[in-house]
Amino acid sequence: MRTELWYSERYEEHGAALSLKVTGVLHREQSPYQEIEIFETEHFGTLMTLDGLVMLTDRDNFLYHEMMSHPALFSHPKPARVLIIGGGDCGTLREVLRHPEVERVDQVELDERVTRVAERFFPELCAKNDDPRAHFFFEDGIAWVGRAEAGSYDVIIVDSTDPVGPAAGLFSEEFYSACLRALGEPGILVAQTESPLLHAPLIRQCQERMGAAGFDAVNSLYFPQFCYPSGWWSATLGRRGLALDSFRRKDAEAMTGLRYYHADLHAAAQVPPAFLLPSA
Amino acid sequence: MRTELWYSERYEEHGAALSLKVTGVLHREQSPYQEIEIFETEHFGTLMTLDGLVMLTDRDNFLYHEMMSHPALFSHPKPARVLIIGGGDCGTLREVLRHPEVERVDQVELDERVTRVAERFFPELCAKNDDPRAHFFFEDGIAWVGRAEAGSYDVIIVDSTDPVGPAAGLFSEEFYSACLRALGEPGILVAQTESPLLHAPLIRQCQERMGAAGFDAVNSLYFPQFCYPSGWWSATLGRRGLALDSFRRKDAEAMTGLRYYHADLHAAAQVPPAFLLPSA
Repeated sequence: MRTELWYSERYEEHGAALSLKVTGVLHREQSPYQEIEIFETEHFGTLMTLDGLVMLTDRDNFLYHEMMSHPALFSHPKPARVLIIGGGDCGTLREVLRHPEVERVDQVELDERVTRVAERFFPELCAKNDDPRAHFFFEDGIAWVGRAEAGSYDVIIVDSTDPVGPAAGLFSEEFYSACLRALGEPGILVAQTESPLLHAPLIRQCQERMGAAGFDAVNSLYFPQFCYPSGWWSATLGRRGLALDSFRRKDAEAMTGLRYYHADLHAAAQVPPAFLLPSA
Repeated sequence: MRTELWYSERYEEHGAALSLKVTGVLHREQSPYQEIEIFETEHFGTLMTLDGLVMLTDRDNFLYHEMMSHPALFSHPKPARVLIIGGGDCGTLREVLRHPEVERVDQVELDERVTRVAERFFPELCAKNDDPRAHFFFEDGIAWVGRAEAGSYDVIIVDSTDPVGPAAGLFSEEFYSACLRALGEPGILVAQTESPLLHAPLIRQCQERMGAAGFDAVNSLYFPQFCYPSGWWSATLGRRGLALDSFRRKDAEAMTGLRYYHADLHAAAQVPPAFLLPSA
């Protein structure tokens, strides 16, 4: 009998762990920023970890990537100019490029190696990387937004890692203020904001910080995401010059090829659990 | 340094596992039906397992118990007579008893020891077990429904374990037909139907079987549930003499004390992922 290999990610602060059965180690490298590892799993396809934490698997990344992109883009009347901060695996970029209204996407990822490794091991996610609308910059996202011309983006997507280390600044009011300045009006910001079950105070904090930064309407999206802690995830939306219910329903209904998001899920995903209602 | 203890549940068919850090073993017994174990965890409170599989934890059971009860009860115009099949931990029963319209609940659990152990280790869930409306029967639920008088229940809740062993029959068209017969008109059946991510074919099968059994309107609920495989769970609703959108909104808005379910979530939880749309 062959020895079983299991990858495990411990959620130390929560006394919990997720494990996936591994059939092969495909790649390991230390980039200037982090340890990038690629495993072949038995039932979840290819797995990428950064510093030992799950970033994505073939099987369930569609949930996160669809929810980081389509709700924001269909909430904007004309999302022509899009900025993605992070997103090095290019899964969010692929979803953004499905939108014909998008004229240009700037993807600003700190670690070029994440993108190069994704191109090799997640070719489906990177299939549209040569789309002429896509522009890649490998540098610090916070500095990029700080230097961006005022009003130069319609949508900003913060597809970041957890709020520790280099990504911590991406959860600050200061950063949200810089995003507001870089957005046109109407404009919309969407940022991943961790697990409702494990990080509810962080979600409220991000909502409050976007409000304090001057966004007109703020709420969050809630969706399943097995391979992230607790299997339940959130993204928080800040809207400039847009109402909470702004939505291009006809365009959402016309989009094909998605596996989780669809027009009827647009509003449903914005309904919080009772414990995260504004009144709770 | 003290040795760490971890409880792990392997989802063998999916090459995945969930682990919780354990600080104490509180109870272990072999009942006539299964191994019942109670652990104290570091961050999820008390944990109950049956034959090694997670049944519930203090921290996240509210998700499952609220969703197995309130959507069905608020979909029925007058849920006076309720039957719970399984549900030995009494968490669903507690939620059902929040409804003043409920006049009688029959809870039919195969294994009395599960309920006795829950009374000892999950006193919050069992706090209402002495409510005079609650009636406990420790016997086979399939036989019970087969013998039930036609039209004798308004709501039937199937709060079962996985579709293997004694619970397999609870996922059959034959059982759903027996439930339909035992329900009045209007009447509603709700059954737990596993993970959308891991068991989508089973969910479709349960929907089809309820339809084939003669229910007028069938759909499913989708909700997060960390401690069950994939962290994403479903329940399937079969309605007799009720439309899909039947809902006592005012009563749902008036209910207090819930942590997940609320009036605005009622319809939102019934929106399927794109891959489970009827058209997909």
